[in-house]
Amino acid sequence: MQSYADIPWESRLMDPSNERKPKPRYCGLTMIIDKGLGYLQFRDLLEIAAPHIDFIKLGFGTAGVTPIPLLRKKIQLAAEADVHIYPGGTFFEIAHAQNQTKNYLDTLRKIGFSWVEISDGTISMTAYERQKAIQLARSHSFKVITEIGKKAQGSFTPAAQLIEQFEADRLHGAEYVIVEGRESGKNIGVFDALGGLDENYVSDVSKALDSNHLIWEAPLHKQQAAFIRLSGRDVNLGNIAPGEVLSVECLRRGLRADTFPFISFEPIGGAQG
Amino acid sequence: MQSYADIPWESRLMDPSNERKPKPRYCGLTMIIDKGLGYLQFRDLLEIAAPHIDFIKLGFGTAGVTPIPLLRKKIQLAAEADVHIYPGGTFFEIAHAQNQTKNYLDTLRKIGFSWVEISDGTISMTAYERQKAIQLARSHSFKVITEIGKKAQGSFTPAAQLIEQFEADRLHGAEYVIVEGRESGKNIGVFDALGGLDENYVSDVSKALDSNHLIWEAPLHKQQAAFIRLSGRDVNLGNIAPGEVLSVECLRRGLRADTFPFISFEPIGGAQG
Amino acid sequence: MQSYADIPWESRLMDPSNERKPKPRYCGLTMIIDKGLGYLQFRDLLEIAAPHIDFIKLGFGTAGVTPIPLLRKKIQLAAEADVHIYPGGTFFEIAHAQNQTKNYLDTLRKIGFSWVEISDGTISMTAYERQKAIQLARSHSFKVITEIGKKAQGSFTPAAQLIEQFEADRLHGAEYVIVEGRESGKNIGVFDALGGLDENYVSDVSKALDSNHLIWEAPLHKQQAAFIRLSGRDVNLGNIAPGEVLSVECLRRGLRADTFPFISFEPIGGAQG
Repeated sequence: MQSYADIPWESRLMDPSNERKPKPRYCGLTMIIDKGLGYLQFRDLLEIAAPHIDFIKLGFGTAGVTPIPLLRKKIQLAAEADVHIYPGGTFFEIAHAQNQTKNYLDTLRKIGFSWVEISDGTISMTAYERQKAIQLARSHSFKVITEIGKKAQGSFTPAAQLIEQFEADRLHGAEYVIVEGRESGKNIGVFDALGGLDENYVSDVSKALDSNHLIWEAPLHKQQAAFIRLSGRDVNLGNIAPGEVLSVECLRRGLRADTFPFISFEPIGGAQG
Repeated sequence: MQSYADIPWESRLMDPSNERKPKPRYCGLTMIIDKGLGYLQFRDLLEIAAPHIDFIKLGFGTAGVTPIPLLRKKIQLAAEADVHIYPGGTFFEIAHAQNQTKNYLDTLRKIGFSWVEISDGTISMTAYERQKAIQLARSHSFKVITEIGKKAQGSFTPAAQLIEQFEADRLHGAEYVIVEGRESGKNIGVFDALGGLDENYVSDVSKALDSNHLIWEAPLHKQQAAFIRLSGRDVNLGNIAPGEVLSVECLRRGLRADTFPFISFEPIGGAQG
Repeated sequence: MQSYADIPWESRLMDPSNERKPKPRYCGLTMIIDKGLGYLQFRDLLEIAAPHIDFIKLGFGTAGVTPIPLLRKKIQLAAEADVHIYPGGTFFEIAHAQNQTKNYLDTLRKIGFSWVEISDGTISMTAYERQKAIQLARSHSFKVITEIGKKAQGSFTPAAQLIEQFEADRLHGAEYVIVEGRESGKNIGVFDALGGLDENYVSDVSKALDSNHLIWEAPLHKQQAAFIRLSGRDVNLGNIAPGEVLSVECLRRGLRADTFPFISFEPIGGAQG
């Protein structure tokens, strides 16, 4: 790596500690939730922010109410921008509840998806059913993201259970495991009724597993800042609103007040005023 | 109607109970509030979501601060997408307070509107003035939407009064009657200070009148879900933010966790994994 | 000025009291916070709302994570629409903390900015350092906006201190001085934990200085309405979300319920229905 003094000034301004990794990266991932961006908005977002977006989730069943040709165009744009795109887990759960997981996967494949989310936020699945769903998706050549946590208000997964489920999902072939935070970020999982973060829980979990493969849903600005202050710039964050993606990138780099004092960098010699 | 077994798999995925009606429909209406979408955003929204939008309201007086040529282009796009577009009731109230209702209607007509909202959320009107305003609008060939409820914080219209006003407005020619919820959805009408819904009130009112002609303003996600759980997918909802329209459609179809368990559908035979 | 009776009806509808000033104006300024609008969104916003926007701030360090060619195109569009555009103060503070203020100003100049914000919301600066920074920016031909207030939760600047700082900044060459309100508008400066406004503070400060050169950050709708009810349509407001700009303009003109009863206008003779 270059010595700090050799880095051009503009680069240091954009990333004071010079530690933000470019895509494709194995940590510091940002997952956006898209609840229905039109084609131009989607293209516009990728034009300004693609280097800062790793995943785009088409929230819950929105893929099902989007015109298929438009869906295909969005998938194409995402691929060109090196962004992975996939439908939300609830869409899978509806197919599973209809006993149609195989048809679901075939349909996604035909539309052009190559990532899929497996979850049981609303339905009940046995450990065996979950394992089989992951393996079925993989046998259809999908890359798999799983999600842990129920969507009902006040739901909470004990740390030991989350860790165990993470290890099982990874063993069965999941690339990433997401921790449920919903779109609201309140009274759900690691967030209290005001959206405050259970920092002990996050610390305990992060120590116990390979957190490069864990994505924390953190929809609110204060949650994103709290995660980055607690776990550093390379924590994986999900359910970021499209309009917040540059803000999250700024938090990671120390370019916003909430994390600026926490991202260290050396002043460069020579007073200038 | 087709038997459930004859419905293609993809259709069942998009609408598990196969009961969502296409436009033009007489219930299950969605009204969007547009507070200043630019031309491309507006076109983008219609491209992705027109089948799920019945009305677009240009909130309060925003039509008055939009360049007229742009307004005309938006009206044209809405017409092509079979969406009814109209200025918010406050704009009418300003004209009425200036004693210029007739000029107001002539101006809207010249610009290209064919729907108008009559309300008294801020001003005072006698029952007779309200009746005359509705009839004047109809005599100018407008279709009329009225609104019931004051905009001041904590305002509340007793159920009996709302029902009576609904019947009077309909008798005088209003196509639809809206129940005030403002953009905030808090401490107003049927919503408490936290945005919680008065379900008894809604049930009482819905039983007492022809609710196909009633639109409930429900700006917050939890309110939209509460209305659909209480009254079913075909409740008419208004003041939906443009970015939430696919979410509301998903709630109606059971494609989001908040209503998924409430929308019944039959599993299809044959285990798949 | 025309007599009220001579004003065409349409103008009175758009601006009942006929007192809203066109750009360029010396008061009633609106500053937008842009946290990452794409090119089309930005163009779209200016097409519908440029007459109502005086300043666009690229929030905190977002300019640093925006592709430079795109940044240049946004600066160009803003210039064509007579809107002043500048990076948020945190970006300056990062450069200052790196002892690179001069490089920062050179870099902004090369990119095409002609306004700059000087602040110490996160860092510490002596009065002398602040003065030197303002003067350095001016000597680089920048027009300067300063900001007063710390960004930490619960921060508060006593009125006497704010007034003194305002006078010092103006003396050293700042065109405008902004009062910190952050993006949240809660538990910061003049706003309590619920976002309520300290009206006595605002009144005291407004009387003591030339408030045409003061901009209050007021991100929330209720704050914008409170400022306009308290100080009139010509109060300068900042940190307005892009989607709220027409709403703020309506509040200034009395075209929204929150200020409609407070904006006086004469009814015009002749009953019409």
